Amino acid sequence: SRKQAPAVITQPRVRWRLVTSWPASLDTLFGGVRTLAAQVKQLTDGRFTLTPFAAGEIVPGLQVLDAVRSGTVEAGHTASYYYLGQNPALAFGTGVPFGLTPQQQNAWWYAGGGLAAMQSLYQDFGVITFPAGNTGAQMGGWFRREVPRLSDLKGLKMRLPGLGGKVMAQMGVNVQVLPGSELFLALERGALDAAEWVGPYDDLRLGLPRAARYYYYPGWWEPGPSVELLINLRAWEQLPLSYQKALELAAQASNLALLSQYEGRNQTALQQLKTGGTQLRPYGDDILKTAWQVTQDLLADQSRRSSAFQKIYQPWRQFQKESLTWEKTGSLSTIMGFAQP
Amino acid sequence: SRKQAPAVITQPRVRWRLVTSWPASLDTLFGGVRTLAAQVKQLTDGRFTLTPFAAGEIVPGLQVLDAVRSGTVEAGHTASYYYLGQNPALAFGTGVPFGLTPQQQNAWWYAGGGLAAMQSLYQDFGVITFPAGNTGAQMGGWFRREVPRLSDLKGLKMRLPGLGGKVMAQMGVNVQVLPGSELFLALERGALDAAEWVGPYDDLRLGLPRAARYYYYPGWWEPGPSVELLINLRAWEQLPLSYQKALELAAQASNLALLSQYEGRNQTALQQLKTGGTQLRPYGDDILKTAWQVTQDLLADQSRRSSAFQKIYQPWRQFQKESLTWEKTGSLSTIMGFAQP
Repeated sequence: SRKQAPAVITQPRVRWRLVTSWPASLDTLFGGVRTLAAQVKQLTDGRFTLTPFAAGEIVPGLQVLDAVRSGTVEAGHTASYYYLGQNPALAFGTGVPFGLTPQQQNAWWYAGGGLAAMQSLYQDFGVITFPAGNTGAQMGGWFRREVPRLSDLKGLKMRLPGLGGKVMAQMGVNVQVLPGSELFLALERGALDAAEWVGPYDDLRLGLPRAARYYYYPGWWEPGPSVELLINLRAWEQLPLSYQKALELAAQASNLALLSQYEGRNQTALQQLKTGGTQLRPYGDDILKTAWQVTQDLLADQSRRSSAFQKIYQPWRQFQKESLTWEKTGSLSTIMGFAQP
Repeated sequence: SRKQAPAVITQPRVRWRLVTSWPASLDTLFGGVRTLAAQVKQLTDGRFTLTPFAAGEIVPGLQVLDAVRSGTVEAGHTASYYYLGQNPALAFGTGVPFGLTPQQQNAWWYAGGGLAAMQSLYQDFGVITFPAGNTGAQMGGWFRREVPRLSDLKGLKMRLPGLGGKVMAQMGVNVQVLPGSELFLALERGALDAAEWVGPYDDLRLGLPRAARYYYYPGWWEPGPSVELLINLRAWEQLPLSYQKALELAAQASNLALLSQYEGRNQTALQQLKTGGTQLRPYGDDILKTAWQVTQDLLADQSRRSSAFQKIYQPWRQFQKESLTWEKTGSLSTIMGFAQP
């Protein structure tokens, strides 16, 4: 390597607060945010520090967007679909029912127009977004009683955010949205009949298998959801370019790291759940078919009501269609089945 | 944001050469390396620059490891399975036949012991490795004539590196290893009867559809191969921590970016190939079943011959088994099929 005289560069010391929607007990999501902050610090020789806060420490877990928008804090880590009330098109930042797998979701973000679409949407909030994690395919939630048929869902109180919640509501479920930290108690005390969080690893850590016995799959409403780093646009614009780049790259690296962690840890946690007495149940065909149809109607309806939604949905839908065609040719899923006879 | 007085930090100017195994015409692989270099430069305020070179500019495409090992250059971007002659266990850095999907492969790297295993292996070469890209599922190659049955493979001259090449060789194929830039001419002139590179997008750019008509799938020998950033260990150890971190994070971000690009672009390119007259053909059952069995025997045999191979293969095999169990529960592949009735 050829070296020259050291370059003297003066860069500001910057300290940000980074609020999250996650309980500190989740070493996946909250741990991922800690790692992201540590990486930015290392990249900037300690000059740019972000201090992560768990849900409820500065603002409640479902008010991260508001805190970033108002400038109460500079940055947040959350899921866009917590904020559908502010703009229904935010659903696509996380994912929609019967939507994209993690690999497709990331292809949509980075190579399918997703990043531009979501950043344009968030600009109206004075916020810039970067995908910063993916939970992998989620499970279909914990139930205190079995729900073999569609009619068994009627009147059940279930925690379920996003468009999946709206679909379940149309199928008769009494849908609630609570932050992750409140799920165990609500389920255990019977304030909820059912709840979903993420998948085997996180759900174990939140204690959910101790509050309900039946664990349904697949999580048809969240086949590959993203979590995002939201940054107040004014704070963002004041950063030196190298600090912006540090945030952007650390977010992108976190995206892959988190997905990889979930993939690895869920495998082991699933075995643990099975030996611990959890009863795995597939959703019945009538529930899945109805959910799929309700989803298609809901997406079409949202498109009619919101031009912001339609603007993202139309190309997204085409992207999904082409993804599936490619997957049928390129993917080894048939072979993988064959490889384990 | 709270700002304090600027911190004056002196860091060296460092200039590295980064050789690759890729033709400059590939805006995926070579373009990804350019992006990686640009990101490192931005992260370090222009102080740390890497200049990428295409295959053959400084060293031939299949001698990248040797150039990094000897210190001729500081860094390289390549696929470990080009160097099986130097250590058969290098196969796992890229991937093995009937191996991991891209998501599983990354989970193995970052959360399944892969990074530690591969870095330990490369330490004997005086090199450190970071995964820095993934091509997604590959296709099964271009053939000038159809090969419906196992017996049709006998004596065919085919370009195919890695363990996949060894499997095909045992199935009667005359296996060649050439760098990507030489494939079109060799195939077009009949020096090769068949050749595989990556998938629809890259193969189009290399002109392969103009040299052969039949395009087979799936690429059972490469379900989710990684490419890697190799760095001379002595050069690495001389870097300031923030520069090391910049390389590591840019590599990790590239890993996801490249996979996402391939996923997005292969979709479109596949359509283009179909309308351009390429004939898609699935591999026959007898070829797939024989290939699977030959692969299992080969992996077991390599394990017996090489303790380095065995040390990685044993936990890898367990990881794959648990991945498949989780995928059967968590993955939406059944649902996705259902979503497109």
